[in-house]
Amino acid sequence: MATHGHAHASVTGAARRPVRLNLFAHACGHHSAAWRAPGSSVERLADITYWEELARIAERGRLDAVFLADGQSIGTAGVERGPAWMLEPLTALTAMARATERVGLVTTVSSTFWDPFHAARLLASLDHISRGRAGVNVVTSMTDEEARNHSMTALPGHAQRYATAGEFLEVLQGLWESWPMESILAEPDGAYVDPALLRPPLHRGEAFAVDGPLNVPTPPQGRPVLFQAGASEPGRALAARHAEGIYAVAWDLASARTYRGDIRSRAAALGRDPDALAVMPGLVPYVASTEEEARRRKAELDARLPVQDSLRQLSFFVGQDTSDWELDAPVPPLPPLEEFTGPKGRYATVLRILETARPTVRELLGLLAAGGGHATVIGTPERVADEIERWVDAGAADGFNLMPPTLPGGIEEFVDQVVPVLQRRGRFRCEYEGTTLRDHLGLPRPPQEIPAPTGS
Amino acid sequence: MATHGHAHASVTGAARRPVRLNLFAHACGHHSAAWRAPGSSVERLADITYWEELARIAERGRLDAVFLADGQSIGTAGVERGPAWMLEPLTALTAMARATERVGLVTTVSSTFWDPFHAARLLASLDHISRGRAGVNVVTSMTDEEARNHSMTALPGHAQRYATAGEFLEVLQGLWESWPMESILAEPDGAYVDPALLRPPLHRGEAFAVDGPLNVPTPPQGRPVLFQAGASEPGRALAARHAEGIYAVAWDLASARTYRGDIRSRAAALGRDPDALAVMPGLVPYVASTEEEARRRKAELDARLPVQDSLRQLSFFVGQDTSDWELDAPVPPLPPLEEFTGPKGRYATVLRILETARPTVRELLGLLAAGGGHATVIGTPERVADEIERWVDAGAADGFNLMPPTLPGGIEEFVDQVVPVLQRRGRFRCEYEGTTLRDHLGLPRPPQEIPAPTGS
Repeated sequence: MATHGHAHASVTGAARRPVRLNLFAHACGHHSAAWRAPGSSVERLADITYWEELARIAERGRLDAVFLADGQSIGTAGVERGPAWMLEPLTALTAMARATERVGLVTTVSSTFWDPFHAARLLASLDHISRGRAGVNVVTSMTDEEARNHSMTALPGHAQRYATAGEFLEVLQGLWESWPMESILAEPDGAYVDPALLRPPLHRGEAFAVDGPLNVPTPPQGRPVLFQAGASEPGRALAARHAEGIYAVAWDLASARTYRGDIRSRAAALGRDPDALAVMPGLVPYVASTEEEARRRKAELDARLPVQDSLRQLSFFVGQDTSDWELDAPVPPLPPLEEFTGPKGRYATVLRILETARPTVRELLGLLAAGGGHATVIGTPERVADEIERWVDAGAADGFNLMPPTLPGGIEEFVDQVVPVLQRRGRFRCEYEGTTLRDHLGLPRPPQEIPAPTGS
Repeated sequence: MATHGHAHASVTGAARRPVRLNLFAHACGHHSAAWRAPGSSVERLADITYWEELARIAERGRLDAVFLADGQSIGTAGVERGPAWMLEPLTALTAMARATERVGLVTTVSSTFWDPFHAARLLASLDHISRGRAGVNVVTSMTDEEARNHSMTALPGHAQRYATAGEFLEVLQGLWESWPMESILAEPDGAYVDPALLRPPLHRGEAFAVDGPLNVPTPPQGRPVLFQAGASEPGRALAARHAEGIYAVAWDLASARTYRGDIRSRAAALGRDPDALAVMPGLVPYVASTEEEARRRKAELDARLPVQDSLRQLSFFVGQDTSDWELDAPVPPLPPLEEFTGPKGRYATVLRILETARPTVRELLGLLAAGGGHATVIGTPERVADEIERWVDAGAADGFNLMPPTLPGGIEEFVDQVVPVLQRRGRFRCEYEGTTLRDHLGLPRPPQEIPAPTGS
């Protein structure tokens, strides 16, 4: 096996940046029909050993992190179509943390529906329990169905959700700094904590009022690594200001490069180092020893897809009823991005696919079946590694958020076949360099000022 | 070793009911000065292996459950005095679940500050992850400091908090029943879920509006075991209606018997089986091979107690400033229970101690130093076992919530020395009879009606 890994990459200069790789663990895999395949993991979704196994495979491949998405409703419109949610992610990731030693653990928290004190506390606790491997993807949520599970009648508007998300992140950061470990004196004949070193944020904002301090001390990483997935204008602004990692949606290299360039410019304009921000588009890999075999596996999964369900998913993506669209006719014209009020990233992808490929409705359904419009690569391990390198070297990505069509099979194949190719090429670590998720991503620990005594 | 255990207890009839035993795991132990002792666990409180070790010791002793209390603020008035909170309990208990096989895991959730959808979800997930070992102690919280961490300016009034708690429990139960496992068809060529079998609670109440269904399926126990600790009138009413276990505060057998009798009458009046409700007062055990040695250990801990800190704690218990009370004078008269607006249980205990023991202020501080007025037993393993049997046989308790003065030492001594005595006497199990917390406590699984099709 190759042993040059990370060291080799730095010798050959900035153009050959190390690749970031996350596993996006979801249900039986990201293909909508994955759970229908014989031998799928559908019976194990409420069994924590399934999720622990996925985390162990990711760690075996030296991946940066395992990421869990989240939603705040069962998704009644889609619940017939296949599994989405089962275990709650913070508890699942806590168990996954104790089943592994190094791999990062990234959860998703909705700033629209979470109280920031609870969120800060659970996340800080996960960072302590995992000894510095926690990350959090802050989302603003998408449906009225979710709002109606949280004593709201409808989802707040897009602008308000993003304003709240910004405030939510400020409160979280203030809380994570509010009880520094240095304040714990634990002197047998003196005080347990020096209260002068506590830094209660005393936050008073539009959405939240939080005195603090948090009742969990500052987490090992200073704060969990902050992820974002925003594609809209306020989403990009929020990501440029706060995110350290971005789970982007990009159908092709050109749109990924445009997106990454925009985010980096915005971050730089805010005085941030753009290299401390990893842009990781989703990637759906179909890997097999021959391209023909990889295509055959994809076709097999596609064939299990009920067309009516796919049309229903498409209705959600494009924000209109598509159930009477003619399958073998071209996709009807869609309104421009500015007029769309749902999640922008995926809609932009649909528009991009229409513009570049002019598919029939049936062809579009096939392209959206796994991952809903994320980049898809089909082929041998070498071909998949080539594509990963090509995107990274073109400045279109810092790495990828892997969305295997099936799980655990799809991530096992990637880890056992694609990762060794990237390692041989010096593009991916052979061993973890450090112990925390910040170490893996080469991110600095947030600055820890010496706190001024209270009252000064 | 004895092997008759549970079987023997049932042969000898109802009077010799099996004893319930919980470990109440808290910081370095329940004595306020435990963290000051040489070799204390104070350096390990943010280290999950400490909490896992406590759970393993409890399981070694075949205890019913490990219980974690919780608070929603650092407790700035008490933070110099000693550690209270460190890890968040739901995440800590998830890790503890994966470090054990059988012992129950009981967390605490505030109905004043938690959104019921989040709470139901995290608890259901813990029940799945632990394969049916979760319990939840629902509390209404106690301080304005906690309220100011959750975008409130002050704690809602006592009556309102209890009304909200009742509604909170109704929502939780509705959510836990809302996605029955039976609805998951997972037919390869059909639907994943039969939506006709979903039972969204569509709750519309004073405090909450929650459509549901929950996006975690019905937990293995039907619902986590419900605990309560209410001592006030609305607290008792809530406990009698909903609780399956009660963490009571009782200084002496007589008040414990009165309390248990009252709760059982209330439960029976509501049509519940009083035997499906385990009343477990707190018990602070000082165990050693001789009574003299046990007393010496207590005196050693008491001597580490800074008097000013103890007075501050007393101020909180009695709701007035006690800092200028004369240490060696009798405790001044206190207002009657009806006029006290803080937590009633502990205040009632203080009144009871004053009435029965007429202590000086210094003597009262000593009695409150560990556990704040819970029953305390000091002596040999046989003596501690005698006292446990005496309370249970007198109808004063179904068992105890053990509050060792030091941890892990205090629970190791109990498990290794007292549990074997109870086992030999046929009063405590030698092996777990089942796998879930409901099994351990002899509680039925909540009835699962065959759901009517929606729309009928």
